[in-house]
Amino acid sequence: MLCLRRLHSFLGILTTLSPQYCSLPLSPKPPTLQFSMATFSEAKLAEASPKLLFRQLFEKESSTYTYLLADVGHPDKPALLVDPVDSTVERDLKLVKELGLKLTYALNTHCHADHVTGTGLIKGKVPGVKSVISKASTAKADLHVEAGDKIFFGNLFLEVRATPGHTVGCVTYVTGDGPDQPQPRMAFTGDTLLIRGCGRTDFQGGSSQLLYKSVHSQIFTLPKDTFIYPAHDYKGFTVSTVGEETQFNPRLTKDEQTFQGIMENLNLPYPKKMDIAVPANLVCGLQDLVNNV
Amino acid sequence: MLCLRRLHSFLGILTTLSPQYCSLPLSPKPPTLQFSMATFSEAKLAEASPKLLFRQLFEKESSTYTYLLADVGHPDKPALLVDPVDSTVERDLKLVKELGLKLTYALNTHCHADHVTGTGLIKGKVPGVKSVISKASTAKADLHVEAGDKIFFGNLFLEVRATPGHTVGCVTYVTGDGPDQPQPRMAFTGDTLLIRGCGRTDFQGGSSQLLYKSVHSQIFTLPKDTFIYPAHDYKGFTVSTVGEETQFNPRLTKDEQTFQGIMENLNLPYPKKMDIAVPANLVCGLQDLVNNV
Repeated sequence: MLCLRRLHSFLGILTTLSPQYCSLPLSPKPPTLQFSMATFSEAKLAEASPKLLFRQLFEKESSTYTYLLADVGHPDKPALLVDPVDSTVERDLKLVKELGLKLTYALNTHCHADHVTGTGLIKGKVPGVKSVISKASTAKADLHVEAGDKIFFGNLFLEVRATPGHTVGCVTYVTGDGPDQPQPRMAFTGDTLLIRGCGRTDFQGGSSQLLYKSVHSQIFTLPKDTFIYPAHDYKGFTVSTVGEETQFNPRLTKDEQTFQGIMENLNLPYPKKMDIAVPANLVCGLQDLVNNV
Repeated sequence: MLCLRRLHSFLGILTTLSPQYCSLPLSPKPPTLQFSMATFSEAKLAEASPKLLFRQLFEKESSTYTYLLADVGHPDKPALLVDPVDSTVERDLKLVKELGLKLTYALNTHCHADHVTGTGLIKGKVPGVKSVISKASTAKADLHVEAGDKIFFGNLFLEVRATPGHTVGCVTYVTGDGPDQPQPRMAFTGDTLLIRGCGRTDFQGGSSQLLYKSVHSQIFTLPKDTFIYPAHDYKGFTVSTVGEETQFNPRLTKDEQTFQGIMENLNLPYPKKMDIAVPANLVCGLQDLVNNV
């Protein structure tokens, strides 16, 4: 619970100054303002209309997508990265700097088995950035989130949906539902739902039964035009929609029993980097691993 | 001029029924309606508000981006592909089919040297699709375009800008400028302007002097928030903006003389596929090459 309190304390800046978000369900009562805002008046902040800057970034070796989101309508241009990779941290941070963004969070959708997260490196290079992962992942991070939590960056936010199945701690981050939030909504599904596919369910607490339930109850229930942004694509697709996946996903359009049969017979090889990646990712990436040795 | 007449004849369907586009500069007087539209009344078409569907697709071997654009606000959902690759044609056409689009054009930004265009294969698989390339490329295609031409798909259009330099026939396709067109605008720059880079200028009529002039006069003059969608990226970037490239492009922010010095000293290897790709692309891709042998 410590991590959640720290998260909400940080977010207090905006919930206090942006009353429209105080009444949102699942957000706790905003705490007292913790930081002084000498450079911007309250009036200026209240005037700021949220404006999403969005970038999709690709890491070729593991075919991983990293996502950069920022509220460039906010004077601070607060930003977050979803699923950064260790080998592309320099590229990502250079872009953040060029765009004049203030990186506040580095999120993981889950404890990855195919690459080392960049969150540890980022924390070492940009002091103040908080790493975020689900509590259920049991991985080390500054902030542990659970279903229903909201992660604010400026006046925009991601809501956390628990989508276990690929791993027991998988979450999907979904852009906010509200008049000032981006439309159509965007779901960062990690390995839970891929474009015309889904993540494997044969290790790290994976369960085809859970994955099926997660996708159908937490992702397919979003509006049809919601964009699906997965953690990987191996065929060159960059985005899909809920509407498309409910119609054309070759696995998840099947009934649950057929789906389980498919997942049990994939016969996939052991992930090349699993024995390096999982231990590293359990401690927020290599940087922390090295520091802790 | 034959090709342009054919293009404008085809487009006549929409220019006739959508009077708002008839007054646009550089469009010729719309010809007589050439096709009957038994399935949709004129009233229905006039009601249709343009709505862009956009997909970026990646081909890993040559790091090529293919772009799918469609007007899904139009009853026919007319679509076009920019820079399709032969090896990913099946993927692209499957997506077109799933999304219920009617593919009308397959465009090339230039005669590529690093991969074989998919336009020939597409024409063989989807009768009625017209291949499009610049007249200056001297490559075979159904339609040859020049600066100022507009390529309509439904009530949306791309305007053609001549941007020679990487090759003598390079063009940039830019989404329309108008109240019903997508905002911010999108520029499909081919190899003329890459994200934080540009195409080489040492073969196929390449000229660093011309490329510099093209970028500065035809691309950097677009609104700062115009999205830059290049034909390739080798570092995992998917998009940039005019504003970003005018600030951070390491080559094109330099003065012309320095830029020419950079381009003359790149010492790049001969493109692996050049001897296959260029002859094939001069005849609209492998399919046509095979047919003509």
